[in-house]
Amino acid sequence: MDRRSLIKGAGIAGVLAAGVAPAVHAQPAIRWRMATSFPKSLPTLHGAAVKFSETVSALSGGKFEVSAHAAGELMPALGVVDAVEKGTLEVAYTAAYYFTGKNPAFALSCAIPWGLRTIAMAAWKRHGNGGKLLAELFNKYNFRAFTGGNTTMQMAGWYRKEINSPEDLKGLKMRMGGGVFGNAMAKLGVVPQNLPGGEIYQALEKGSLDAVEFVGPADDEILGFQKVAKYYYYPGWWEISADTDYFVNNAAYDKLSDENKAIIAAAADVAGRDMTAKYQALNPPALQRLVAGGTQLKAFPKSVMDAGFKASMESFEEEREKSEDFKKIYDDLREFQKGQMLMDRVTELPVMEYMRSVKF
Amino acid sequence: MDRRSLIKGAGIAGVLAAGVAPAVHAQPAIRWRMATSFPKSLPTLHGAAVKFSETVSALSGGKFEVSAHAAGELMPALGVVDAVEKGTLEVAYTAAYYFTGKNPAFALSCAIPWGLRTIAMAAWKRHGNGGKLLAELFNKYNFRAFTGGNTTMQMAGWYRKEINSPEDLKGLKMRMGGGVFGNAMAKLGVVPQNLPGGEIYQALEKGSLDAVEFVGPADDEILGFQKVAKYYYYPGWWEISADTDYFVNNAAYDKLSDENKAIIAAAADVAGRDMTAKYQALNPPALQRLVAGGTQLKAFPKSVMDAGFKASMESFEEEREKSEDFKKIYDDLREFQKGQMLMDRVTELPVMEYMRSVKF
Repeated sequence: MDRRSLIKGAGIAGVLAAGVAPAVHAQPAIRWRMATSFPKSLPTLHGAAVKFSETVSALSGGKFEVSAHAAGELMPALGVVDAVEKGTLEVAYTAAYYFTGKNPAFALSCAIPWGLRTIAMAAWKRHGNGGKLLAELFNKYNFRAFTGGNTTMQMAGWYRKEINSPEDLKGLKMRMGGGVFGNAMAKLGVVPQNLPGGEIYQALEKGSLDAVEFVGPADDEILGFQKVAKYYYYPGWWEISADTDYFVNNAAYDKLSDENKAIIAAAADVAGRDMTAKYQALNPPALQRLVAGGTQLKAFPKSVMDAGFKASMESFEEEREKSEDFKKIYDDLREFQKGQMLMDRVTELPVMEYMRSVKF
Repeated sequence: MDRRSLIKGAGIAGVLAAGVAPAVHAQPAIRWRMATSFPKSLPTLHGAAVKFSETVSALSGGKFEVSAHAAGELMPALGVVDAVEKGTLEVAYTAAYYFTGKNPAFALSCAIPWGLRTIAMAAWKRHGNGGKLLAELFNKYNFRAFTGGNTTMQMAGWYRKEINSPEDLKGLKMRMGGGVFGNAMAKLGVVPQNLPGGEIYQALEKGSLDAVEFVGPADDEILGFQKVAKYYYYPGWWEISADTDYFVNNAAYDKLSDENKAIIAAAADVAGRDMTAKYQALNPPALQRLVAGGTQLKAFPKSVMDAGFKASMESFEEEREKSEDFKKIYDDLREFQKGQMLMDRVTELPVMEYMRSVKF
């Protein structure tokens, strides 16, 4: 495979030169490589890889180093999970739902339509059953997951024409993150394309895509989608939140000392917490700039929301039928979500509605 | 002061015996003590102190130890900030708004009425101006803050009688967390009492309190408020979210190596992220048990929300007039909040409303 020859060809020196060089306090005793699925231009997704790398160095006093490599530097954006599974790479930093071709249940570690909010996703993984169930899943592929940051709730993406009814979605060639919502959108007539972030703009520009959803204002503005599509829709019901994951090869992990194991887990928390906060802080001013620059911000009409909801629920039933892994983890997530929605309805939802009503 | 003699009298052995003993991998080169404002019975707030302690030990391979002491073990719950300011204690783990008597701007590190949501609070502190402004404030008191977990949005508390109008609040002796919302509630005729968590139940039981707000279902159930008050109100507009802080004495911190400085920051992230997730996971089943046990869950009527909103805004204006620190940080928070609410209204709010509408 191209990926392997690229790794071989580059050699250690080339690999280190291409990656982020963390501050070095001592000669590192352990050198790991991390490859991501994200372009270097994004301070959010790529920034979280750099932050992870810097944190491992800082916590180990420079004795443990994990170099961070953006998509394409060591291997293609969507090759990172295979590499961690095979042990040719120690860490993959990615969005699990890119890999539903491997197993549809991977989506449940990242995002599903009408899924858990950012804050609830962390709760399900850490203090519900989510973390344990996903660990069993990933163990089949020889790696373990450390939850990174969350993109916070996403937008419904960029369209060249208005979406006034479900009919308007039919035949749209649309980039989307992958996973179950690709299937749901396909039911609505969309032709989903799973392109990594760094390859979308060009496809949109040359007309091989009609629409694109990536993340939200902060990332989308940098990737330049506003230059080629005018209408920016919300809400992104297929990504109420989306977790990233640091996938660590089991054999490499098992060789670490207890201290270095704790460092890996802590680095994921440090980088993850920072990334979620960064999205939440960068999105509003980016949205304001986009709108000032001519982007038309639009809400999906109720007919589109209803059609999306129905198509999603049908897709979930199909996935449950097809995959035992999906069924087990999905059902647990939905059970957990019931309690979350109960609490939401006596906490954040009424206060958000009240504040809107008084035009705060 | 009692506190000091207690510390002196206990000696190192007594202090360590009383605190949490972290897993020891090596003879610790550095031993610090952390005192909290919270009772040991709470797996959330006290659990976050224990998690911090364990994380420092794990990340340092046992060479750095921070013992965790619940309220009253080393000093009274509300004595911890003075101790860190004076340098008789290295770390205080607390809720900053307990200390608005010292400076009203302390509330802005924790919670204010109609404030930022959990996810937005982290964004303001890390990628807005919040963290820098609060660091300047706390530096006047010889310490720095590392944000811990967030309680997530709180309930409006426990009442012995129904609250059907603002009139029903008049004269209520009510325990509340302190800070600006005490002043706002006082405008509505409430007599606010700032009691630490571990002392509330007894006061409520013996009738010296009519009502109490503490946090939310998970903590409140453990503290037993449902045994002495029947009505549980929402939404807790005075604590849309509430951050905890690890306050670290500057002189002690400055003596740390870069590695140990990174360990302190990482431990706050690890423990903080865990605590927020724990609240979010434990609250729903606790609420369900409370309601099954006879608790009456009630929404504040609009007249009470309106009166609370008006009283809050008046209180904020008064604080802005009185305190330059408060004005500077408060104004920045509100400016940041505008962007947050814009994003909320194209992301989580419409999708939460839609999901409620389809009875998901």
